Amino acid sequence: MAKIPSALVQPWPSAGSIGADRRGLLASGEGIYVTDGHGRKLIDGPAGMWCVNVGHRNAELAKVMQEQALELSYNSPWYTTSSPADALADVLADRAPGDLNHVFFTTGGSSAVETALRIMQFANNVRGRPEKKLMVSRQGGYHGSTYLSASLNGRPRDQDWMDSATHLVRKLSSPDPFRRPEGMSIEAFEDGLVAEFAALIEKERAERIGAFVAEPIQASGGVIVPPPGYLKRMRALCAENDILFIADEVVTAFGRLGSVFASRDVFGIEPDMITFAKGVTSGYFPLGGVMVSARLFEELRRSNHPDAMFAHGLTYSSHPVGCAVALKNLELLEGGILDHVNALSGHFQTSLKSLEDLALVGEVRGLGLMACIECVADRVSNNPLTLDLEVGKRIDAHCQDLGLLVRPLINMCVMSPPLTITIEQVDTMVDILRRGISRTMDDLVRGGLWKG
Amino acid sequence: MAKIPSALVQPWPSAGSIGADRRGLLASGEGIYVTDGHGRKLIDGPAGMWCVNVGHRNAELAKVMQEQALELSYNSPWYTTSSPADALADVLADRAPGDLNHVFFTTGGSSAVETALRIMQFANNVRGRPEKKLMVSRQGGYHGSTYLSASLNGRPRDQDWMDSATHLVRKLSSPDPFRRPEGMSIEAFEDGLVAEFAALIEKERAERIGAFVAEPIQASGGVIVPPPGYLKRMRALCAENDILFIADEVVTAFGRLGSVFASRDVFGIEPDMITFAKGVTSGYFPLGGVMVSARLFEELRRSNHPDAMFAHGLTYSSHPVGCAVALKNLELLEGGILDHVNALSGHFQTSLKSLEDLALVGEVRGLGLMACIECVADRVSNNPLTLDLEVGKRIDAHCQDLGLLVRPLINMCVMSPPLTITIEQVDTMVDILRRGISRTMDDLVRGGLWKG
Repeated sequence: MAKIPSALVQPWPSAGSIGADRRGLLASGEGIYVTDGHGRKLIDGPAGMWCVNVGHRNAELAKVMQEQALELSYNSPWYTTSSPADALADVLADRAPGDLNHVFFTTGGSSAVETALRIMQFANNVRGRPEKKLMVSRQGGYHGSTYLSASLNGRPRDQDWMDSATHLVRKLSSPDPFRRPEGMSIEAFEDGLVAEFAALIEKERAERIGAFVAEPIQASGGVIVPPPGYLKRMRALCAENDILFIADEVVTAFGRLGSVFASRDVFGIEPDMITFAKGVTSGYFPLGGVMVSARLFEELRRSNHPDAMFAHGLTYSSHPVGCAVALKNLELLEGGILDHVNALSGHFQTSLKSLEDLALVGEVRGLGLMACIECVADRVSNNPLTLDLEVGKRIDAHCQDLGLLVRPLINMCVMSPPLTITIEQVDTMVDILRRGISRTMDDLVRGGLWKG
Repeated sequence: MAKIPSALVQPWPSAGSIGADRRGLLASGEGIYVTDGHGRKLIDGPAGMWCVNVGHRNAELAKVMQEQALELSYNSPWYTTSSPADALADVLADRAPGDLNHVFFTTGGSSAVETALRIMQFANNVRGRPEKKLMVSRQGGYHGSTYLSASLNGRPRDQDWMDSATHLVRKLSSPDPFRRPEGMSIEAFEDGLVAEFAALIEKERAERIGAFVAEPIQASGGVIVPPPGYLKRMRALCAENDILFIADEVVTAFGRLGSVFASRDVFGIEPDMITFAKGVTSGYFPLGGVMVSARLFEELRRSNHPDAMFAHGLTYSSHPVGCAVALKNLELLEGGILDHVNALSGHFQTSLKSLEDLALVGEVRGLGLMACIECVADRVSNNPLTLDLEVGKRIDAHCQDLGLLVRPLINMCVMSPPLTITIEQVDTMVDILRRGISRTMDDLVRGGLWKG
């Protein structure tokens, strides 16, 4: 059958369907629910794309958008500022850890990571060490969809057909305890990860490495929660070698783990920069940014090149409407939602963990209100199922029939619902997942695709 | 005096003031006016940043933002679509020239250009010609503020302290008739520009060149209107050598030149891709995108690699609120504003041109409702004034006292007001400019900085 051309091209098309790929319609949202084009009401399991933190159809956010647009709908950040941008910057500087007292606003996560990386490059040019530019990232990481930010990505299929700046990037292993060598303790696994970074620094030399970029929890890589001491030790290695530690908190900031920023409050580290997006406006408005250390900027101000121009900025940097939405969103988060997340996350994780009694489920892991159900061919070897089985998509289809939208990732299902989800709704979600996974197991056995 | 740290970091800071740079407050907007922090009401000469096309405080756009946010505030473009995104894609495919029937939405101009470039790279990987990736841009061009898009930039100071992918880019001369060699005809100048591109293709070989990226009018490079036959001949050279012609219409689309897209309607060319942003939402919401040729996607669909993944997409691609705003904005443009621009642009250009009788003014040039006043040290040699004089900033300061916000660019002032400006308001604007430039000339002579 010939594919019907479609004017709208959506993310991640394959060559065989590019320009001919129609995706399902979402008609409306309400709290933790969305309604699809067939009138089915579904729990929004992934909260859009890890972002609808305060829930859909929030009247206060919608109102603030209109009000700010009727006050000042746009100002050029090159020449002017606005009250919402000034206020949001101050409030974020207050909430951020350590001396991360400055913020550069962008339009999302990719541009936030681009900004952080370009700050690193610029800073090392101004400091007279232009060789110190290598970026270290990790397998399983995801950092964006621009040429430079995407060069850091390390998930399967991210780069197979895409060009990237491989000469500027070095990759470390994913800190995924579930995939550690058989029989190895978590402690030994952690030691190995830190040793791997130390060896890389030894090999490439600290003088050539500009930044280490890491999601505190690898999100779309499968909600990889690293071993307990990993982040602190990686942060210490960066400090010892004058390598900037860039925490990519596009997913973990703004409530997903119960705090505004997770680096210090959850993981006990103070990065040199933190990138954020998504939850900062609950997805209502494209906004992202990077928090930057005061120490770094002070050093630049005192450098021998005061006229050096950081030639970087976006038309929509510090957008007054986006900043107004973010201020209201933060008010909602701090007005009870963060407390709710902290109270609920134990039950959320325990309930999902109970799915591990299903034979298809290799591990359920997570933190706060983010979790991943990883399916495996068999428990003994932890073999991932072959891609062809599309287990995630099969589970998603069954769950949608039962009232839950899942975010399928190859053999994984990621759960990150709106943070306003109640304890009863969590139970409903887990119940649907149990039935959806069971149906999938039946399908696979019936089709002779899995031994059960 | 020590610089006071500021939490908000705005675009294009210098190292000496980064994190300590406070810019003037804009409090509110209304039609073609903005009101600053001191209560001064000013004509918004640059329309924000070439973007507030339907004017400030448009109640219909503000209303649509709230309404769409109360219907569906966000949907993941990876798995779903929304009615506004589908509708906007169809309408843009209808308005775009030739077979540019597909659109990929982004969050602004930089991400639109990134997307176009990554489509070119991906397409040539899938077509089995991975060597065909060089990007050709021009001196004086501006294409964005991400690593790859910024690598195309060719304005003074854009890249002095920034890293860029120089090995992937080749630059041609700016098609600036004002700066052509003394005594050369426009025709000979145009011939030379085309010959320069032909020679580059000869030297680098067509098999290695993926795309030519050009603003039909170089905007922030100083509103450079190319010689009459230039764009058509450059487009023909691209077609002959299978080089994708990417028209960067971030500034020229959505009414600035009196049409939705300017490539065909104003310049008579059909590009392979058109990037857009800014005017598509009149700056109310961060949205951009790239129109793509159906022929290109058909070729990919029929390729030998149907499973090749175009691993590219943004959380806020096809944002339902942004697309709803764009639909309403387009309705306003097509409901009378485009006609108004076409009726007014003659008077706009003629009035501004009258400023050429001032000794400081070397040339006034433009098209539609965009223009540039270029100041020179003297008419005979057309010498640009030294950067230190900051003539643009001086003119801007005087004009602000008189009620007009100017966008200063070194020795130039760019005028691109909201498209709703009336003929009387144009006259006021030009009158203020005349007085502001005259005062600047007095200052320069008085200070012994200029011979007059």
